[in-house]
Amino acid sequence: MKYLHTMVRVHDLDASMKFYRDALGLVEVRRNEYPSGRFTLVYLAAPGNEGGPYQPQVELTYNWPDADGQAEVYTGGRNFGHLAFAVPDIYAACQRLADHGVTVLRPPRDGRMAFVRSPDGISVELLQDGAALAPAEPWASMQNTGSW
Amino acid sequence: MKYLHTMVRVHDLDASMKFYRDALGLVEVRRNEYPSGRFTLVYLAAPGNEGGPYQPQVELTYNWPDADGQAEVYTGGRNFGHLAFAVPDIYAACQRLADHGVTVLRPPRDGRMAFVRSPDGISVELLQDGAALAPAEPWASMQNTGSW
Repeated sequence: MKYLHTMVRVHDLDASMKFYRDALGLVEVRRNEYPSGRFTLVYLAAPGNEGGPYQPQVELTYNWPDADGQAEVYTGGRNFGHLAFAVPDIYAACQRLADHGVTVLRPPRDGRMAFVRSPDGISVELLQDGAALAPAEPWASMQNTGSW
Repeated sequence: MKYLHTMVRVHDLDASMKFYRDALGLVEVRRNEYPSGRFTLVYLAAPGNEGGPYQPQVELTYNWPDADGQAEVYTGGRNFGHLAFAVPDIYAACQRLADHGVTVLRPPRDGRMAFVRSPDGISVELLQDGAALAPAEPWASMQNTGSW
């Protein structure tokens, strides 16, 4: 048995690629377009896990807009919690997210844990790989924003 | 960077263990209880992935009932899609689920794909690992139930 992927729906594929790839740092490993069904699937892996033994991925499902150009908008529920990734430097990861316009909702004041949300409200947890880093500004005095 | 886990919230830990462990076949690899915060975390892995190179897991978050014995009930949203697992024999996997009282919402009529839902409504996709199996009863003529 293999854990293959976690699928999330995205209402704007460009905005989602900016979040998951450019800001978070995942790598696109596969993309399939289905014109007859009018949807696109994009598979993303943590960098360094693109090859070798299979690692579960994040699957983005993008349902194309209808004839009026309207895309479905997705809201969340409480049964799903979050996707969690370990990062080698949580401050560098949060700075990269911030540089791409992503609000760090739960800043890594403890040098260990942070939360952000995707454009569709999917909560993403970042955890420092290994021991927590020493507290450092601007993160140490940054307040929480919203919920995650 | 490592994809660590996907977290889902469960309102009844026993019912969820019956689903994820007994019916689906995942293996509990770690359990942490936090009495001060009144919650339990259970980490589940696909069997065969308990050791060796790290494989992402499913994290169950169980918030303990309040003083009146009421547990939070969780509903879903459309931004989260599903968890997907490859299985060596999709008919055997679906039979095991059915034997544990789980309705196979999308039966594997094609010998390739099935969907079920957790007690909290988390959609779970099963995919036949490798080539589709030959169509077989009772699955081939089984109708869909509800949505997934």
